[in-house]
Amino acid sequence: MRIDYRRSLEKAARQMILIHRPDTLVKLILRAIQRTVKVRHAGMFIYDKSRDAYVVKISRGFSGLKIPSGFAKLNADNPLITYFTDQRLPFDRGSLLWDKIRRLKPLRRDKKTAAFISSLKFNLSLYSARACIPSFCRRELVAVLFLGEKINRKSFVEEEVGFLSVLASDMAMAIKNAWLVEDLNQQLERNKRLLLQVVSALASSIEAKDQYTKGHTERVVDCAMQIARRLKHTVDSQAWSSFTEELKVAALLHDIGKIGIPEVVLNKPDVLSEEERRIIQKHPLIGQSILGHIEGFESVLLGVKYHHERYDGCGYPEGLKGKKIPFVAAIIALADAFDAMTSDRPYRQALSLAETLEEVRRNRGKQFSPIVVDAFLKIYENKDSR
Amino acid sequence: MRIDYRRSLEKAARQMILIHRPDTLVKLILRAIQRTVKVRHAGMFIYDKSRDAYVVKISRGFSGLKIPSGFAKLNADNPLITYFTDQRLPFDRGSLLWDKIRRLKPLRRDKKTAAFISSLKFNLSLYSARACIPSFCRRELVAVLFLGEKINRKSFVEEEVGFLSVLASDMAMAIKNAWLVEDLNQQLERNKRLLLQVVSALASSIEAKDQYTKGHTERVVDCAMQIARRLKHTVDSQAWSSFTEELKVAALLHDIGKIGIPEVVLNKPDVLSEEERRIIQKHPLIGQSILGHIEGFESVLLGVKYHHERYDGCGYPEGLKGKKIPFVAAIIALADAFDAMTSDRPYRQALSLAETLEEVRRNRGKQFSPIVVDAFLKIYENKDSR
Repeated sequence: MRIDYRRSLEKAARQMILIHRPDTLVKLILRAIQRTVKVRHAGMFIYDKSRDAYVVKISRGFSGLKIPSGFAKLNADNPLITYFTDQRLPFDRGSLLWDKIRRLKPLRRDKKTAAFISSLKFNLSLYSARACIPSFCRRELVAVLFLGEKINRKSFVEEEVGFLSVLASDMAMAIKNAWLVEDLNQQLERNKRLLLQVVSALASSIEAKDQYTKGHTERVVDCAMQIARRLKHTVDSQAWSSFTEELKVAALLHDIGKIGIPEVVLNKPDVLSEEERRIIQKHPLIGQSILGHIEGFESVLLGVKYHHERYDGCGYPEGLKGKKIPFVAAIIALADAFDAMTSDRPYRQALSLAETLEEVRRNRGKQFSPIVVDAFLKIYENKDSR
Repeated sequence: MRIDYRRSLEKAARQMILIHRPDTLVKLILRAIQRTVKVRHAGMFIYDKSRDAYVVKISRGFSGLKIPSGFAKLNADNPLITYFTDQRLPFDRGSLLWDKIRRLKPLRRDKKTAAFISSLKFNLSLYSARACIPSFCRRELVAVLFLGEKINRKSFVEEEVGFLSVLASDMAMAIKNAWLVEDLNQQLERNKRLLLQVVSALASSIEAKDQYTKGHTERVVDCAMQIARRLKHTVDSQAWSSFTEELKVAALLHDIGKIGIPEVVLNKPDVLSEEERRIIQKHPLIGQSILGHIEGFESVLLGVKYHHERYDGCGYPEGLKGKKIPFVAAIIALADAFDAMTSDRPYRQALSLAETLEEVRRNRGKQFSPIVVDAFLKIYENKDSR
């Protein structure tokens, strides 16, 4: 075996640790094996927990020679697997070579072994495999590497098989590692989705107390997210994903403080008295006190606390002005006001879309942040031009 | 360089991928290097993002020879680092060897380089380092391996340095991988904590509407978790961690449906009328409808929906009996009833602890599940015996 071929395979194996998608990993290594060992085809059967079987993820080779997709699964009791896993069989757990199996004399063995050997031969020819090399990680068979005939038609020599075995167990470790990273990423995604769903469910249950604003939260979230997308260029690209996540949670929870407002005030069908308005206007601060102790919720809190501030400083609770109003809050403020204007209230009818857009334009730099207004108007200008 | 020493180091390097704690990883490899290359000491400076410096995590060697802990940090502008990272310097980015630097003639170079070389020498002697080998991952200097004098006092030969360089870049990749896994695990933990905090905050804000039950949710969670701990042997050990997480969330949210009950009914200071009782008894089903669409919340939902079922089948909403009542719900049912009995209500005084325990005992197999009662009683029996 030439040293440069070992080197190039070793180099490929080294990179495996940085690849965290099992498919990409296997593709890379198979390509390297095929190029250097010069076999007609190479495939990898990888254990699939959910099916308790070994499944071909990637198979490379000349058309008609590579593992046909109809034979893409080996059950855990297939002889090509039990050869490696069944400790009762009279074989070591090393590589399975066509040239070695072919020469075995079944007559000198018991009937059961003879049957097993002929079944092995049958399966090896089915996959045109000249060598099957196990990928063990600790004692677990993670995968099996299938190699077709060498292009020069020679047998695999012991040194080659030894080297490929080491490579195969490197692959096993890399695959396990990739599985772990994949699994952690999936868990993380699931957890993020779960948080959003829980927050949504609780936010809408609280909103349900306020009988005039059904669906309000959902619409505010939608509108805020649309505005944000048009402001993407103003946000640092690394921070973008957490910015949108936080904006979404803040939009979902912007009225959470209404839980602390008595139902009689919340559901009053008439215009509110000065005193009642004062009570309602406590909701951003009540929201802050509800969410205030949650680690990592700092931005969400800003959105909840300041979504009734005005650009000209005449809002509440603090009368913040201009750029002092957190960006998240400025976006929610417009989305919230937009939904209020376009919804019926017992004491007034909804504005038309044209009237609402005019109102928003008129309040650019007064009630609303100019850049937020500009982004918002683009949504509807785009809609008009469609 | 003897082949067996290469092999044993290569084998150690192969295992690195499975080790996801950076410290353990470095410890393992340094031990292998020290044992096989036979140096007086070996240490590894690993990049620490938060400090923008290279920090010794592990240093092994004979006492007095290993890197002293007072010198455990190299800033990114230390010559031992810029030697590898500063492209303007007239050196390749390969290994830094004492024997090579010692022989350099600064006179033939410019003053700046001469100063740099003498500073390099000074720093190398400070750490008694005979070789510094960079760990690059792609173009990033992840770590630097420091080796002391060989025990046989000979110089490092080129082949050794080449081999150790490859090993060092394997380490760099393994360290990067370990960082990634560590980071994902931390994010996951943070997310789980966040979910619990958000659920807690919202649950207590809702509970705040019900003025007679302040702190109730928190006490139910505590009691339910204590009961669960005493039932650990009855739960499959693999499922234990998710079981307790789900129980905790379910206990936090068990009364979430009360958000749908009018405040006048919820806060009525007298005993409830039949009609009012019927309204209040809707809260488990309202809870179910609030949380019903959340993926992965199936167990939580069972706890919320069935926490007012009774073991004898006389509970609500479905009159489930005995073991048909989900375990999570049976635990919350007792914790909930326990807190209600030991709390004052406007229309009755709290029971004493002794009276409550007697009441729980009397209801074993009637209102409450026998195994849950037994676990519960152990908490207080243990408290008595202390």
